[in-house]
Amino acid sequence: MAEAHFCSVLVTGANRGIGLELVRQLLRLPKPPQCVFATCRDPQGAGAQELKKLASKHANLVILQLEATDEGSIKAAAKEAEARLAGKGLTLLINNAGVMPPSTLDSVTQEDMLSVYRINVLGPMEVTKAFLPLLTMAAQQSNEKGLSSHRAAVINISSIGGSIGNPPSFQTFPVIAYRCSKTALNMLTRCQALEYKGRGILCMAIHPGWVKTDLGTDKATLDVGDSVRGILHVISSLCEEHAGRVVDWQGRLVPW
Amino acid sequence: MAEAHFCSVLVTGANRGIGLELVRQLLRLPKPPQCVFATCRDPQGAGAQELKKLASKHANLVILQLEATDEGSIKAAAKEAEARLAGKGLTLLINNAGVMPPSTLDSVTQEDMLSVYRINVLGPMEVTKAFLPLLTMAAQQSNEKGLSSHRAAVINISSIGGSIGNPPSFQTFPVIAYRCSKTALNMLTRCQALEYKGRGILCMAIHPGWVKTDLGTDKATLDVGDSVRGILHVISSLCEEHAGRVVDWQGRLVPW
Repeated sequence: MAEAHFCSVLVTGANRGIGLELVRQLLRLPKPPQCVFATCRDPQGAGAQELKKLASKHANLVILQLEATDEGSIKAAAKEAEARLAGKGLTLLINNAGVMPPSTLDSVTQEDMLSVYRINVLGPMEVTKAFLPLLTMAAQQSNEKGLSSHRAAVINISSIGGSIGNPPSFQTFPVIAYRCSKTALNMLTRCQALEYKGRGILCMAIHPGWVKTDLGTDKATLDVGDSVRGILHVISSLCEEHAGRVVDWQGRLVPW
Repeated sequence: MAEAHFCSVLVTGANRGIGLELVRQLLRLPKPPQCVFATCRDPQGAGAQELKKLASKHANLVILQLEATDEGSIKAAAKEAEARLAGKGLTLLINNAGVMPPSTLDSVTQEDMLSVYRINVLGPMEVTKAFLPLLTMAAQQSNEKGLSSHRAAVINISSIGGSIGNPPSFQTFPVIAYRCSKTALNMLTRCQALEYKGRGILCMAIHPGWVKTDLGTDKATLDVGDSVRGILHVISSLCEEHAGRVVDWQGRLVPW
């Protein structure tokens, strides 16, 4: 395994679940990032208490307000990150924020479909666009050649639920709006990878496993700590061939 | 090739391009359908003249107003189709209506992404839901066992542009909103296939080729007549194994 070291990282949806655990484990790395940006919709709310506790102990943790469906909020967060980075680029962007409301083909409404698409697809698209200048700067400032997560990378947290070729049983996993959105996110990731490789930015997607979180529920099979250890291992080992792909938390390719 | 015969067919977006040609060729089959429903957004508009000419010559052609983003319009069309079918089911639903506005990752807006998703994904989803009772009725009334297009089927017109595994060059085909929507449509098709097979309805998607139409532009490589002949050949030959798949106009599997 390549040693995990990223100069700076931004994680969206970082106040709970996989996002919060990513922040925790990034801070605990042997060589932690100089700057970890943890974004959430409401940094003042009750849901951000854990994040605030962490920030009181770690000077390299910066909490930013970011609502992935609100362009103004995304741009403000990018501006604040730029100021904090003081001339340095952003190495790693992890688009983790997402939702998975239950919905069957029978019950789902147009509003459900649009709302989930907005958060799970347009969110990562707009956040990546807003941070593109900082990611490009990191790629330019790096001594590394080729694509890698130590130079500049965008990781979209996707799901096996978005895999058309290998969908989990529909009856036991009735989340049609989520599924369509994650499939579209995989296409977005492929297009981002093609479009941004010229800037030296590696884009790919990770399926975190079925994780015991608010989103995954307590029926899930995987502990959030194990999932995130796997995710960080995968991220630190990325190279050119992973661009545009979906890989699970154990590094296995996920079918489209 | 199985002989193409469908008791009744509904084609959305039927006033031009592939939709209009589907209607033309269905009417010209050796055994034409007893009822062809051709839907478009504005049957009274200038864009529906060709369809009206056809209807004046073919008593089995019924033009219905249907706006795929308007639930009320879809339900009204389903009600009128039900009345016309007078106790019979609908054999074949072809969700053809769609849009492909140019958009790059750089230029695309949230509104573009949502509008294309609404037309290309939510349209086929809602139209299929509205016609589900008539499709189910056709499956029940049929003497055939198993899944086939002669019993009851939903065909979603998709695109190789939605294939994550094999996307055409991004630079020459900058339609990010369309791509994400067609990828999501392929997932929707897979979910519809799983969900509706118990009702005896075959659901699958077809890539029509790059066709010389308003949408495909005159740079396209394929004549609309050839594409539609291929599509109808493919549809008439469908069986259980095609459920949930994407197949091109020549019957070849398209990667997800």
